Amino acid sequence: MSRVLIKNADVITLDGPDEVLRGTDIAIADGIIEAVGTAPADFVPDEVLDATDQVVMPGFFNAHTHAPMTLVRGWAEDLPLDRWFNERIWVAESALTEEDVYWGAALAAAEMIRSGTVGFADHYFWMDRVAEVVEQSGLRATLAWCVFGLGAEQEIGGTTLEMTVDFVQRWQGAGDGRIRTVLGPHSPYVCPADFLARVAEKAAELGVGVHLHVAESKEQVENSLGQHGRTPIAHLAHLGIFDVPAIAAHSIYVNDEDLSILAAKGVSVASCTGCYMKLGMGVPRLPEMLSRGINVALGTDGTASNNNLDMLEEARLAALMHKNAHQDPQLLPGDLVLRLATQNSARAMGFPRSGVIAPGYAADLVVFDFHQPHLRPRHNLIANVIYAAQAGDIRHLMVAGRWLMRDRELLTLDEERIMYEAERRAWRMVGEELHVVREYKG
Amino acid sequence: MSRVLIKNADVITLDGPDEVLRGTDIAIADGIIEAVGTAPADFVPDEVLDATDQVVMPGFFNAHTHAPMTLVRGWAEDLPLDRWFNERIWVAESALTEEDVYWGAALAAAEMIRSGTVGFADHYFWMDRVAEVVEQSGLRATLAWCVFGLGAEQEIGGTTLEMTVDFVQRWQGAGDGRIRTVLGPHSPYVCPADFLARVAEKAAELGVGVHLHVAESKEQVENSLGQHGRTPIAHLAHLGIFDVPAIAAHSIYVNDEDLSILAAKGVSVASCTGCYMKLGMGVPRLPEMLSRGINVALGTDGTASNNNLDMLEEARLAALMHKNAHQDPQLLPGDLVLRLATQNSARAMGFPRSGVIAPGYAADLVVFDFHQPHLRPRHNLIANVIYAAQAGDIRHLMVAGRWLMRDRELLTLDEERIMYEAERRAWRMVGEELHVVREYKG
Repeated sequence: MSRVLIKNADVITLDGPDEVLRGTDIAIADGIIEAVGTAPADFVPDEVLDATDQVVMPGFFNAHTHAPMTLVRGWAEDLPLDRWFNERIWVAESALTEEDVYWGAALAAAEMIRSGTVGFADHYFWMDRVAEVVEQSGLRATLAWCVFGLGAEQEIGGTTLEMTVDFVQRWQGAGDGRIRTVLGPHSPYVCPADFLARVAEKAAELGVGVHLHVAESKEQVENSLGQHGRTPIAHLAHLGIFDVPAIAAHSIYVNDEDLSILAAKGVSVASCTGCYMKLGMGVPRLPEMLSRGINVALGTDGTASNNNLDMLEEARLAALMHKNAHQDPQLLPGDLVLRLATQNSARAMGFPRSGVIAPGYAADLVVFDFHQPHLRPRHNLIANVIYAAQAGDIRHLMVAGRWLMRDRELLTLDEERIMYEAERRAWRMVGEELHVVREYKG
Repeated sequence: MSRVLIKNADVITLDGPDEVLRGTDIAIADGIIEAVGTAPADFVPDEVLDATDQVVMPGFFNAHTHAPMTLVRGWAEDLPLDRWFNERIWVAESALTEEDVYWGAALAAAEMIRSGTVGFADHYFWMDRVAEVVEQSGLRATLAWCVFGLGAEQEIGGTTLEMTVDFVQRWQGAGDGRIRTVLGPHSPYVCPADFLARVAEKAAELGVGVHLHVAESKEQVENSLGQHGRTPIAHLAHLGIFDVPAIAAHSIYVNDEDLSILAAKGVSVASCTGCYMKLGMGVPRLPEMLSRGINVALGTDGTASNNNLDMLEEARLAALMHKNAHQDPQLLPGDLVLRLATQNSARAMGFPRSGVIAPGYAADLVVFDFHQPHLRPRHNLIANVIYAAQAGDIRHLMVAGRWLMRDRELLTLDEERIMYEAERRAWRMVGEELHVVREYKG
């Protein structure tokens, strides 16, 4: 693998608190950061990137999404959650094909790379096709094949737990370790209890984690108390789901005991602020989770409810929403929310050596072009990134020492073909007339 | 003036509700939109823009900002409002010079054009220098010279009401009508009552409006009730301030009677969601203002509290914050918030013939490049703009029929020199050591 020297960068390391290094070099070998500051005397780079006027930062990890849902971006607007599901999303998904999943995930991968994401935790169907996209794109991912546990005829694609177990085994560690797999039961409000207990057993046996939806609404909590005598979190703990590494997406409606369970069991919470705001779902207890040492990660959720995969916006929204909800501008400062969107999310996904610019960490990083009026003056680089930058200011992106984007050009994906195929399939799925389809010229 | 034909655009007109025209032409002559749909048979353009795969929309109007404060972007982070003012902003502003105002406003103008803003309502000091920037940049603006009414030694630059009156007269209608001026008393919590009454009289005499800060905190309301026996809104109405066209920025803490006054007096409220969230200031009563027919406009406020001048983000935050505050995803739909950020803000600023793509309106518009993965598929162009696009997706910007940006190149401003001068001055103002200053190469 190649040796890269990034020269004269301003670096937001996310290592020490608020640490920013000015005019610094970064030496990268075999996908790992070898030195930050001055390259070793014997370091002979294959490639040098002059990063004058640019800011290097760890790349983002998106800890909860459904990548192929790019196909229904904008298809369910300004609706309450039930109508959003029943009248739009589940209607469109009924027309989903395995091939659609590939192209939807490819469109997502292109968008993620352009917006600074180096890894994503995906939860969807026909996940072999998503894994193919991950392999081709060069991204990292932690993949879960979603299963309801309701019997074949109620599952998309007739999914069974066994199929998702096969998927886990087929792909674990693929792409030189960039691909990780976990089990993906949908949620405690959809999956039967005995099914969840089987999932927990199976995950422990396989030595993998789980990724599921939890406590998205007050109604879900009330129903859980009525049916199981326990909150969703306590119910899952009781069934053994939290005895393996878990991503509990959302966890909006939690009580103090739930927080104790999440902390004691080392569960990662993936919080998706943009989605909660857009669908009016409320404000999760993030400050309390953080003060209890819970690993809070950030995710975008799917583009049907966000409507993008922009993790910089997600980090910004997390800071803004919680500051205002508590009327305390000192909550969730910039440095902290960037950690949630990078190293905390990476940890949730099983990539503990990502999310920091320091020797020994994976070279998973982005380079922001700061030679722009909205990023001047440079009093505070962290504030400029979290509150003033746009995802489109990211000029280069590297995963495991390999450039996936250089000078805003995608190096691993055929973006023209992807945009064409994805849009064509998206229109077919929702039964619209085709609009502006032109001949593919890629 | 030149005649421009924009061909084959998808157009968000903001005219009829949710109106989107696909593959449409727009004919522009003498700064005015002449036709939308098919150009008149005798229309001979000087220039044709092929807008295939692009989306045309009215440009944004920023109804409340302090443009020269770009110089203190990132200089006051994660602080409560009092410390934000006393320890940071007012310290930095004490070192402000007239020349700084020019370069700070120029930096703001470059950022605004790049992010789709065609006009801004500014409220600051040494406003002749801001007016020069407006004249040079080709933007529209409604300018107010801020005055406290506390006597020369407590005013920045020794401002008096008379100086601000002279400014109003000097610049009213300049730049072919692109520049409008109003009086700019700071606020009812800083300005003495008799001074505000004089301002109201003077504005009426001059036939101009006013622009001021109102009701930003509960404490301001309590203090006003204690000192004047009236809420800030009622106090201003009593003093005659609302007998002229007024922009009442913020108006966060208002009671039902205040809302009745704002509606009856035709006051425009400029709401700055990003600032409120970042400083933890609360949630204004926007849905109720809208249902009472109050002209709600949007603004970014200054970059010390936002930290950018991105009106697309501002519109998105308004939708998201209010949906979640009321846990109602149907509140403030996309089409509506885009109207607030365009035509409502334009109306507040005295440009009632802007903010709509329809014959007879000013050609103040932006062109989004939709040939990008995060803007596909195109199920719903309005949703894609409000929830998925970035300001940097704007490729061209036109004011009064003249391109200020083409293919992301600024045509009226020397951006390199502006970035260099503004940053140099910003660092001097805050007394920092200079960091990465290099020789100017513009």
